[in-house]
Formats: sequence, C-alpha cells, structure tokens
Amino acid sequence: MSRVLVKIAYDGTRFSGYQRQKSDPTVQEELERALAALHDHPVAVTAAGRTDAGVHATGQYISFESDRETIGIAEMPAAMNSKLPTDISALGAWRVHPRFHPRFDAIRRHYRYRLYISVYTIPTLRGLAWRIPEMPDLERLNRDSAAFVGSHDFSTFAARRKDQDNMVRRVDYARWVRRGEEIEFQIGADGFLWHMVRSIVGTVIERERLRLRGKPVGDTIHDLIDARQRSRSGVTAPPWGLYLHDVEYEL
Amino acid sequence: MSRVLVKIAYDGTRFSGYQRQKSDPTVQEELERALAALHDHPVAVTAAGRTDAGVHATGQYISFESDRETIGIAEMPAAMNSKLPTDISALGAWRVHPRFHPRFDAIRRHYRYRLYISVYTIPTLRGLAWRIPEMPDLERLNRDSAAFVGSHDFSTFAARRKDQDNMVRRVDYARWVRRGEEIEFQIGADGFLWHMVRSIVGTVIERERLRLRGKPVGDTIHDLIDARQRSRSGVTAPPWGLYLHDVEYEL
Repeated sequence: MSRVLVKIAYDGTRFSGYQRQKSDPTVQEELERALAALHDHPVAVTAAGRTDAGVHATGQYISFESDRETIGIAEMPAAMNSKLPTDISALGAWRVHPRFHPRFDAIRRHYRYRLYISVYTIPTLRGLAWRIPEMPDLERLNRDSAAFVGSHDFSTFAARRKDQDNMVRRVDYARWVRRGEEIEFQIGADGFLWHMVRSIVGTVIERERLRLRGKPVGDTIHDLIDARQRSRSGVTAPPWGLYLHDVEYEL
Repeated sequence: MSRVLVKIAYDGTRFSGYQRQKSDPTVQEELERALAALHDHPVAVTAAGRTDAGVHATGQYISFESDRETIGIAEMPAAMNSKLPTDISALGAWRVHPRFHPRFDAIRRHYRYRLYISVYTIPTLRGLAWRIPEMPDLERLNRDSAAFVGSHDFSTFAARRKDQDNMVRRVDYARWVRRGEEIEFQIGADGFLWHMVRSIVGTVIERERLRLRGKPVGDTIHDLIDARQRSRSGVTAPPWGLYLHDVEYEL
C-alpha cells in the first residue's frame, strides 16, 4: 500500500468541472473510473484544486492509495492513460508519504489565462482561449496587474463560497505576455479564491477597453482591492481561457 | 453580380480535407451549403489551396459570385458565420475583379507547423499540434532549414500528384521559433507541392532525433534536395500540426 501523486492534464470543455457530481460528467469521475479499472476496486482521489466547468489543466495534481505493486511508479502514467478518455492525460507520477495531501501540501499554484485578438472566432482556438476584438496595450495591463502582487485581502476579486473565510492570498507574480495574435496572463500565488483569476483578468481587460475608447477608468487597482467589495470588480472572464498550469510541492 | 474574396479559418479535425468529396464531410461542402442558404441558390466556391484531412487553416481564401446585393461586403463574414458550423469561420471579405482566382492570383503562401514537447499527450493540444518527446536544438533545426530557402526542385520533399509537373518552388523563409514547451515551423513560398511542408518538418525533426542520440545524419539537406528523389526524404509529419496561415494577393 503506498500513496501516489500524479500530475494530470485535461481539456475541460466536456466536463462540468473537476469535482464529482451526481449526474454530470466530471474529471474526478473519469479518474476514479480509470483507477478502479486498474486496481479492481474503488479508489478515492483527492486533487490540488477544483476547477470549474470549461476550465482546463496542464498541471493539476491528484493523489490516491495504490495497492497495485505490480505497476511501477514510472509505469503509472501510461497505465492510467490506457484507461482514461483522450481529454484527460496522466503526465508523471511520484511516491509520496502516507499523509500527503495534494491540496494542503501545495506551496504555490500557477494559473495561465489565454486570450486572442480577433473580430470573429478562430475555430482552432474555440473553447481554448477568450476572444477579444482589440489588441490591448500590454504595458498598461502589466502596470495594472503589478498592484495584485503581494499579500492582499482579495474579497473584491472573488466569488463568495461558504468554506472560504480567510480572503488573504499572497500573489508572487502577475504579468501579461504577447505571443503573436495571442496574449497570456500568468499568475502565481500561495493559493487562489473562487473565480479570482477570472475576476482579475475580466477587470483588467474591461479597464483597458475603456482606455482604448478614451474613457476614464476611475479607481486604481489598489482602490478596488482596498474596497474589499465583490461589487467593485469588473466582469468575470469566461472559464474556457483559464488553465491550472502547475502546482508546487516540497516533497 | 460581383466577385467576392473571403478569408476563412477552420479546425480541420472533423473534415476529410478541404475539397468536396462524394460522401465524407469537407470544408468546401459546408461553405457551399452556407452560401446556398444565404443566396437561395447554389454557389460554387474556389479556394486558394486544397488542404488534406486534419489540416487546419487560419488564413485560407475562397472566392465566389454573389448576387445578394443586400449583404454589404462588410457584413459578409457575419452573414456567413450565422450559417456556418462552429469549426469554420469567415474572418474578412473583399470585392475583387470578375476574373480573380484565389489560387492562380496568389503571390505568396504561408504555412505554420506546430509541435509540442511532452512524453504524453496534452489534451488541449490533441489534434492541434504534433507531439514529440524531446526538445530539439532550434539552432540546428534552423541551420538545416536555411537550405530550403531559394528556388529549388522539391521532388524529394513532395508526394507525386498527376497534376503537378513543375516541381520548382521559391521558398522565401523557413525558420523555427520556440514558445515555451511548443515550437513552430514557419515557411513562406510562392507555392507548395503536395505534402511539402509535412515532408520538410518530418525530415528535419527525424535528423534532429538522430543527432540527439549521437548518431550521424549523413547527407546534408542540400544533398537531399539535389537528389530529387522522394525516397530520400524522411518521414511525413502528421497533418494535425499543419496550418494554412495566410495567402498574399496583389489586389
């Protein structure tokens, strides 16, 4: 019997999010189905974080107990992939200590948010990136986003959830990079609140749209953070541009 | 009655290529179906180039006769998009002279080939980029690819097709760029032979794999071009990494 940590990636398009639900398809359900098939008995899976419907992952982490000693740790990803649907992949596996938990033992999480600039949908990007019609000024986006770095109460930039009472998070970096007609928002923090990345992206993009129309944006990002009021944030960017990029552990 | 040129993009995954066939789904069939619905009569479409099954486009061009004078040229993309499936988009439209032909009037074509480096499939890239297990040395890829630039007989790097007898093409640029865990091959030429980009990509990547294993690659790319023998090329890279990126016209 040993505890296993597996790095996974998925295309969230088809799923009603990561977390198992009664009837809708979820990533957790597919993972538990595949692991049950490999182990010949039910296997419970815990994850680094729950992602919402439509959100993707290139570096989600899950953990479970495995008694299949015939599967070496190096063979685990291929064994899982043989049982998983094509929109979920195992990318790597590690043995961890018996009390390891992929959510509580995470020391840093990294998200990416992809956008592309086009008046009409580009079919090869649909469901994978948020389309906006005008190219923003990345210097201005980066100036706005610098204000998120540091330890702040992010109540303005989070949807309320009963199990979240501490709204303080430490953001280590928040930056925008350009790749041709695509732009990407990159953010790393000790943890994220519900809808936090999508609220930040939506708010910063909405402010830039105002500026491109020569309109005033009013408050600074510092003002919005200090207000600690959900009503002060801008729009929430759609889920399909968001990627859980990676999670860091001290192993 | 006026001749219209439309820039289109598509996700080639679901299609048996661009060109209309008897029974399998094709991009041309969907375009002609949408235009017939807009015009209330059949509309014949000609394209800049035929793409194979699984190949994508972000800048394919089609042309047709339109007698729907109620649709302004600026409204044409949105009108077409209202009738097209989500994996095909119209991106722009222009009025052109009555004898314009999107294939014969093209002065330059640009292709892109996307690859990513991973031992296992990344679900959000499946069908959209070729997966290779090891990161190549881009300087060596670029050194190899510089040999393609110029006017050459590309018989080594093309599949034979009855309607192709002039095998000489002028390549204007051929380069590799890195974007994180992805790499992209970019090539522009006055025209391309059948499977030419995929043969070039497959051959260059196969040579790099040999080098990464410390094995000799033997011939130079110049040797392979000079041989003018299809049997001297390496593997043909899979269709799903290839994108018809853009076509240039003198309007």
